[in-house]
Amino acid sequence: MAETIFSKIIRGEIPSYKVYEDDLVFAFLDINPLCEGHVLVIPKEPAATLDQLSDESSAAIGRVLPRLSRAVLAATGAREFNVLQNNGRGAHQAVFHVHFHIIPKFSDGKGLQIGWKPGSLDASAGKALAQKIATAAIAR
Amino acid sequence: MAETIFSKIIRGEIPSYKVYEDDLVFAFLDINPLCEGHVLVIPKEPAATLDQLSDESSAAIGRVLPRLSRAVLAATGAREFNVLQNNGRGAHQAVFHVHFHIIPKFSDGKGLQIGWKPGSLDASAGKALAQKIATAAIAR
Repeated sequence: MAETIFSKIIRGEIPSYKVYEDDLVFAFLDINPLCEGHVLVIPKEPAATLDQLSDESSAAIGRVLPRLSRAVLAATGAREFNVLQNNGRGAHQAVFHVHFHIIPKFSDGKGLQIGWKPGSLDASAGKALAQKIATAAIAR
Repeated sequence: MAETIFSKIIRGEIPSYKVYEDDLVFAFLDINPLCEGHVLVIPKEPAATLDQLSDESSAAIGRVLPRLSRAVLAATGAREFNVLQNNGRGAHQAVFHVHFHIIPKFSDGKGLQIGWKPGSLDASAGKALAQKIATAAIAR
């Protein structure tokens, strides 16, 4: 994949407001935050989207999300938060290096704005789709 | 924490459209999907919010997210997607058992709707905040 600004941040060639680092993971403040305490958690492995990331790097990110969430809540005083990870331009991804957003949600409404218009799942369609996804999950 | 419908789904007491299961993780179709292929990935451990989840369970979810994302893309034909995890009523959490949404984003716009109004990070405030979060991350 093409080099992104995040690779330069990981290597320290571009400064960042770092909040955490281990062998596989780097975390820093988003410089265009939705609100105070908006953090990005990224793998050092340069995968463009989550479906292309190794299991090991993705597990390493998963492992630190609870700890970093607690740290963001403690530092900001927020009590609620969203974790968001976007893949593809149409899904709001702007930098093509996997990143998980931790976004505090404040009682005044500051934070991530989500539109939620759920439908319903038809029983026979649901059964067929679940089988299709389950089969694909085994194959990959 | 209080028992939720997800504990009953994990134990098979309530039927679900299961797509994946391992020792620590269970995944199934959301019955009120935002679009076709909307999957929920949950830990078997009954934590209400991500900040309360064990590192081990969170790592186990992280590990399977790439695989399940590929399966959802393969089964639906979508090429883009969002992963979302909500914590707290004000942050759109409805069931108080940790769940990661995998939501395909289709070219016709179906999928998660996100409002994105970024601000900018003041340099001195950013430095102080990053230090505060980094310190909290070490302590927790």
